Amino acid sequence: MKALVTTDSPDCALRLDAVAEPEPLPTQALVTVSAVAVNRGELTAIGELPPGARLGRDVAGTVLRAAADGSGPAAGTRVVGLADGDGWAERVAIDTRRLARLPDTVDWAAAAALPVAGLTALYSLQRAGRLLGRTVLITGAGGGVGRAAVQLASAAGAHVIAWVGSADREHGLAELGADVVAVYGTDPEEPVDILLDSCGGDVLTQAFRPVVAGGSVVAFGNTAGAELRLPRDWGRARPGVSLHYVFLIDEIARHDVAHDLVFLLQLVVEERLDPQVALVASWTDPEPVLRGLGRRSVNGKAVLAL
Amino acid sequence: MKALVTTDSPDCALRLDAVAEPEPLPTQALVTVSAVAVNRGELTAIGELPPGARLGRDVAGTVLRAAADGSGPAAGTRVVGLADGDGWAERVAIDTRRLARLPDTVDWAAAAALPVAGLTALYSLQRAGRLLGRTVLITGAGGGVGRAAVQLASAAGAHVIAWVGSADREHGLAELGADVVAVYGTDPEEPVDILLDSCGGDVLTQAFRPVVAGGSVVAFGNTAGAELRLPRDWGRARPGVSLHYVFLIDEIARHDVAHDLVFLLQLVVEERLDPQVALVASWTDPEPVLRGLGRRSVNGKAVLAL
Repeated sequence: MKALVTTDSPDCALRLDAVAEPEPLPTQALVTVSAVAVNRGELTAIGELPPGARLGRDVAGTVLRAAADGSGPAAGTRVVGLADGDGWAERVAIDTRRLARLPDTVDWAAAAALPVAGLTALYSLQRAGRLLGRTVLITGAGGGVGRAAVQLASAAGAHVIAWVGSADREHGLAELGADVVAVYGTDPEEPVDILLDSCGGDVLTQAFRPVVAGGSVVAFGNTAGAELRLPRDWGRARPGVSLHYVFLIDEIARHDVAHDLVFLLQLVVEERLDPQVALVASWTDPEPVLRGLGRRSVNGKAVLAL
Repeated sequence: MKALVTTDSPDCALRLDAVAEPEPLPTQALVTVSAVAVNRGELTAIGELPPGARLGRDVAGTVLRAAADGSGPAAGTRVVGLADGDGWAERVAIDTRRLARLPDTVDWAAAAALPVAGLTALYSLQRAGRLLGRTVLITGAGGGVGRAAVQLASAAGAHVIAWVGSADREHGLAELGADVVAVYGTDPEEPVDILLDSCGGDVLTQAFRPVVAGGSVVAFGNTAGAELRLPRDWGRARPGVSLHYVFLIDEIARHDVAHDLVFLLQLVVEERLDPQVALVASWTDPEPVLRGLGRRSVNGKAVLAL
């Protein structure tokens, strides 16, 4: 079968190559893949991996062979799941604990856009604590996780401030539930109870300023690749404040991922969560997707269709 | 009655002055004070307050008049309590929710040394999570809170690494339960699950290095008065890591302080917690205590006797 693998070519960071068929464990279903998503973390990994490496977490497709242990969906079921980093392929074996049946109304692209972004937003917000009536500042709000977080925080009754890197990233955020949309560094002029950050560096330092005593900061990325710097009164001026670092691959061991995917899909069906598919390309030509994500011109999720 | 008040004299930062008698609220007992403790935070506050200001949290004494609402200990009871910043006085009104009966075997100095240091250590360790079998690195371990934290962490079954600013601060820490005693920056050569820090600045940055994924950092001070700086991989190399800032005066609203004082006193009676009274002076001459704390030559708590 074919899979996308890394290259050492400067023109094209991924190419289709022949790879071995997956050999499912008893707990894994074999899935025929219809669409996959590309996440920022994977974009970074592509640049760091040697040629010939495989990637891919977000997978939507159809069960070709159910798990041997009898768990999970039957053959022929449309599913979405979280693969182990080998999902950008024609077929992939996925643990049934990380697989959910896809409602008929959710298409392949929407489904593939959901796992990494939706679960990262969900687990980050869960770590922050209660949301009803609290003010949540979300940086990187124009991207895939950011847009999922804006919608989930809004659905949970929070007052949502969405920060983006530039005005052209603001598109659609108000419609998704952001009460305030502004570019990085804009004084929110109101106290912030919860800060969700994936930028790190100066953006995190700026976004930390309005955080109040007892507030929660949840970082789920550090795209600036910078050290963490907070002012000398970081704690004393904010007794009870906490900072957490959430990394999805670490979180999934502590969560019932299949259950949480069903929950996110239900929100999609109820039109309370839009996966924000902003760009779909064929997996035979992934370059436009990689370029768009790299220069942050994708206002949402980028999907490759097989 | 008399109380210690701040001065603007360069020779003597505190002096005894006549002040108004306390007027207890219905929920407060009136206490005749026998001993008080001086904490680092108060030392800082002395330098920042205008002349004539009062201070004092840690109080041991005898109930002169029970609370009007019938709560708390009866007149004549020996007690220890957490005052509202007016405890360095002959008499003080203390909320009965922050007052505990003193066992006969606990003397005034030991009792006065307990509330701020013991409760800060207790609440900081509680915030860090489970302790049994985990490795706890405690900075500032030579001071009052540090010595309480070493003993409480050890009593809770943790493997304790005590960091001090200089070798002469190491005195007695091994006997209190520290498994490793070292000066700041010494590579602990083992992963750290929990970091308790009151130094901030470079010490915190150094102490953060061995903290592992899922680890908890609890800061309860920032004596360096420096900004928080953590390396660029602070989160990515430690998925699930968290940082918390604990400030006692903020914490007490969320805790049953009277209950927790009884618990700490019980540990003292059982000789599992030594309040580490290192210096006792008369409140008529507080300068030696202030000087000793200021240059960190007090290996434990400093107490003023009335």
